[in-house]
Amino acid sequence: MTIHQFSPSVYYNTIGSHEPVLKIQDGDTVVTTAVDYGGMDSSGKVVAKPPNPMTGPFYVEGARPGDILAVHLEHIYPNRNWGYTTNVIAPNVLDPAFISQLPASETIRWNVNLEQGVAQLTDPSPALSNLKLSLGPFMGCFGVAPSDGQAISTATSGPYGGNMDYRGFVTGVTAYFPVFAKGALLHVGDGHAVQGDGEIVGTGIEISLDISFTVKVLKDKTIYWPRGESQSHIFTVGNARPLDQAVQHATTEMVRWLHDDYGLSMIEASNLLGQCVEYDLGNMFDPAYTMVCKLKKEFLA
Amino acid sequence: MTIHQFSPSVYYNTIGSHEPVLKIQDGDTVVTTAVDYGGMDSSGKVVAKPPNPMTGPFYVEGARPGDILAVHLEHIYPNRNWGYTTNVIAPNVLDPAFISQLPASETIRWNVNLEQGVAQLTDPSPALSNLKLSLGPFMGCFGVAPSDGQAISTATSGPYGGNMDYRGFVTGVTAYFPVFAKGALLHVGDGHAVQGDGEIVGTGIEISLDISFTVKVLKDKTIYWPRGESQSHIFTVGNARPLDQAVQHATTEMVRWLHDDYGLSMIEASNLLGQCVEYDLGNMFDPAYTMVCKLKKEFLA
Amino acid sequence: MTIHQFSPSVYYNTIGSHEPVLKIQDGDTVVTTAVDYGGMDSSGKVVAKPPNPMTGPFYVEGARPGDILAVHLEHIYPNRNWGYTTNVIAPNVLDPAFISQLPASETIRWNVNLEQGVAQLTDPSPALSNLKLSLGPFMGCFGVAPSDGQAISTATSGPYGGNMDYRGFVTGVTAYFPVFAKGALLHVGDGHAVQGDGEIVGTGIEISLDISFTVKVLKDKTIYWPRGESQSHIFTVGNARPLDQAVQHATTEMVRWLHDDYGLSMIEASNLLGQCVEYDLGNMFDPAYTMVCKLKKEFLA
Amino acid sequence: MTIHQFSPSVYYNTIGSHEPVLKIQDGDTVVTTAVDYGGMDSSGKVVAKPPNPMTGPFYVEGARPGDILAVHLEHIYPNRNWGYTTNVIAPNVLDPAFISQLPASETIRWNVNLEQGVAQLTDPSPALSNLKLSLGPFMGCFGVAPSDGQAISTATSGPYGGNMDYRGFVTGVTAYFPVFAKGALLHVGDGHAVQGDGEIVGTGIEISLDISFTVKVLKDKTIYWPRGESQSHIFTVGNARPLDQAVQHATTEMVRWLHDDYGLSMIEASNLLGQCVEYDLGNMFDPAYTMVCKLKKEFLA
Repeated sequence: MTIHQFSPSVYYNTIGSHEPVLKIQDGDTVVTTAVDYGGMDSSGKVVAKPPNPMTGPFYVEGARPGDILAVHLEHIYPNRNWGYTTNVIAPNVLDPAFISQLPASETIRWNVNLEQGVAQLTDPSPALSNLKLSLGPFMGCFGVAPSDGQAISTATSGPYGGNMDYRGFVTGVTAYFPVFAKGALLHVGDGHAVQGDGEIVGTGIEISLDISFTVKVLKDKTIYWPRGESQSHIFTVGNARPLDQAVQHATTEMVRWLHDDYGLSMIEASNLLGQCVEYDLGNMFDPAYTMVCKLKKEFLA
Repeated sequence: MTIHQFSPSVYYNTIGSHEPVLKIQDGDTVVTTAVDYGGMDSSGKVVAKPPNPMTGPFYVEGARPGDILAVHLEHIYPNRNWGYTTNVIAPNVLDPAFISQLPASETIRWNVNLEQGVAQLTDPSPALSNLKLSLGPFMGCFGVAPSDGQAISTATSGPYGGNMDYRGFVTGVTAYFPVFAKGALLHVGDGHAVQGDGEIVGTGIEISLDISFTVKVLKDKTIYWPRGESQSHIFTVGNARPLDQAVQHATTEMVRWLHDDYGLSMIEASNLLGQCVEYDLGNMFDPAYTMVCKLKKEFLA
Repeated sequence: MTIHQFSPSVYYNTIGSHEPVLKIQDGDTVVTTAVDYGGMDSSGKVVAKPPNPMTGPFYVEGARPGDILAVHLEHIYPNRNWGYTTNVIAPNVLDPAFISQLPASETIRWNVNLEQGVAQLTDPSPALSNLKLSLGPFMGCFGVAPSDGQAISTATSGPYGGNMDYRGFVTGVTAYFPVFAKGALLHVGDGHAVQGDGEIVGTGIEISLDISFTVKVLKDKTIYWPRGESQSHIFTVGNARPLDQAVQHATTEMVRWLHDDYGLSMIEASNLLGQCVEYDLGNMFDPAYTMVCKLKKEFLA
Repeated sequence: MTIHQFSPSVYYNTIGSHEPVLKIQDGDTVVTTAVDYGGMDSSGKVVAKPPNPMTGPFYVEGARPGDILAVHLEHIYPNRNWGYTTNVIAPNVLDPAFISQLPASETIRWNVNLEQGVAQLTDPSPALSNLKLSLGPFMGCFGVAPSDGQAISTATSGPYGGNMDYRGFVTGVTAYFPVFAKGALLHVGDGHAVQGDGEIVGTGIEISLDISFTVKVLKDKTIYWPRGESQSHIFTVGNARPLDQAVQHATTEMVRWLHDDYGLSMIEASNLLGQCVEYDLGNMFDPAYTMVCKLKKEFLA
């Protein structure tokens, strides 16, 4: 169980079977950083190009296609005191006939107080001058190399994870990814200090991150979509367009999980989910949308 | 401010410009009941036919097209000690290639303890024998007569409300509907004792209800989709297929609300919603799906 | 086999269980007219209000729920020498981010030469001054009363037909509708002199029509969506949003048809359709979109 | 203008910035072959693995990001006398509640008579024993390296082309792709001898091909989606899910084309397309669906 201090110097804009930046063992922890969406680091210096330059990939010894890579998020927190968002709701989230009523989008800046854990507009209009948001820092984009040697833009997502922009991937959560390539090849990055459901302006408060995570390989266990576990819930993640299909992926994956690991029949899983399931809208902005299917762990006791 | 005790004897399976069962004044309260989805009343007697027989319509004096009808839900609670659900997740919520792995759906029964406020499967398999769910009683289907003299099945929903199956319409919430017909013609019913997000088995725990509500007419104020207000949130409701379009309707309606009533510019509304918005999946089963766009009232202070 | 000359004086903007304007026998022919989308008749006089005022309903003796009403289109042709369209592509047919580049829509006029069978812009810009379109006159909106006593706006469509805006419903075609109400209650109207696939500007060349049709009741035969037969093809019509669902309805209905009436197994139907099926995009503008699944009759010999 | 005879020995299952197999000049012609979906060549020998192993990439000298690569399909024809299909309609093309009525899918064989230009089931059931289909050979999957150094599975498609499975890409057609990588890096393959609209069984009649094509670089001309030109039509191709979005991409690209190259205003393009546009359903099976927007060239004179 080694703790690796890793300082990135190369960044990829695709998630794929790139040359690993570090080889680690099952059980190891990595302490590292990630630049923001636009490639700016903790000092605000541009060291990579958009979109979402990734730290990694990390090669996990022993991980093989057909395994699961568990990534426990030990610590995900901004490492600078400002971020930025766009300032207009994205066209695909609005009625087509209403879109023309919104102005063109610009980038605006937010102050991020790391000690108090709050964000505020740097230059608010009077109506929003009291707006003070609690931080909920997470990684918008992370995942493992996709199947078939693909290298896919960090603008989008899929069964391998990627740009899910789901605000549930916070400190303390464990994410599970299907392994498609030898060594899994984990990529991490795309810090958001705060974000609403759906990432409807097309950004969270984009910011560079301190990241530490611990990996674990679960051998010979096939999953089809990312899964996660928080203090309170288990959850599954569907990445696709339209939202309907994202829900279908997430729900099917949850049924599989309840069936395979918790021993529920299809009917038992249906009875439980039917009256207890929750859904989160991860993002409705990226090329693939993200819907999350959640179940409180208290129902699994 | 009269309180009307109303005992229904006629039930409609469409929401439309039917003969009113009662005329009430702006500000009045109605205390009534509703049978369940299948037409069974508090004693379990079948007194109407499915789907979702409605109590009403109630004609509200003074309500005219172009107004809003506000319906404050004073009390929504089951009036019998059992309900029923189907027991298999609906095909449209699952991956098409996975559907064949589920058995045919049957109706099963739940015990509903009105005093303790919990529901349990009447005849659980061992794996679910400890499942005890807190009640969250709400109306699955309610709304006002739709535009243009239409009469639309209580299986579906639209700008006028209808079968939204959103579990947020509980006691204490105020719902707002656009008025399309003289007198608004409010219909209420379709009790659910408990339901998960999305109504993914196609039912909540279907049950007959005691209902009391108070109406208020907001003159000359146009809204396009149902709105609501709870203790903690304001929310807007989009009813359409696919989910993407339901999100578009709900989000656009929320932007209109923030702009027209709270005086925010499009950019201010975007900045606020972008980092603070929440979405609920009302239903992904009915002919029209339902997505709800929510904002915490604390952000509007 | 009576031929009825019927001159409409009442028009409905919903398709529903309205009082019949005429009772006819199985096998009868009706010769009538329809006003255009906006309610203008052959002389350009406004005699009804939008959208799509219907001629009818015609009550067909002997038609009962569970039967099919076959409507053979004997003659569908404009009865005046001008029509109109809107002049901007509808927002829902364009990329959301591109919509703002189009101006607001206006109504423009077309000359329709009934003898030569061509349409031309009344006031063309130079670039379109040579544009001369062959007429393809059809009914955009027609169908039978929907299920459960519903009355549904002529802006939309469903299993009962309605505003399908499919340019295949021309003279010589037979349309088949499932009967939901006693007497079927056929409504006809919404003339289009010309239209592209998808009705992407939201109109065809809107025009009043001469219409004659012959009805036939096919007893005790259940279909789920409108069907049709032309000289060359059989076809099925799915009306829903999104297009994916419209395709699903149309394809499923075609499989049922091949199975039930042509005796093909599911595999035979698949082999045939897989390599021979054609699809038409009826409309992608109305609340329900329309996709048509077609098969050449030569493959059924 | 060299004619290159190229015999492939390496095959890629992604379209990406792979090492070129051949460098050619602007204006050159390549005469080559492609194996089928499963990697079988003209002799039926498996020489590559599924899905859709590509011949290429071909590096076109002078092609740079921001250019267009025009690919004129000189000759696309099967080079063996048999192919194969699956034999059950894909679940995503059917109503979710109907899917369970179809059996599991198997692969079946077709005889392909190259001289007569017809295909017949090798082992037909009696009902399909007379089925004789005219060949319409085309490439299901071809395109150029995608943006940002991505390498994307030949199972799907995008702005760069890929697995569009559109049966319009036949001999005589010119396809246009946006160039994203130096040399464009053209990949070709995935022969279909026959296919219905939509590729609804998930395959055409899969077959190996003789292919010859001529490339041309159009400098400094940006397009966003593949375009094409046949004897009769110009067309644009949208690849996305759901179909609605594919239509949006294709229509927007057609409007851009009419505006930029034919000098039509947005209103002129709308008037023309509104009454004259046609759409083809390329595929509704692959991860990205394909819709094609077409306009008869006679309207552009």
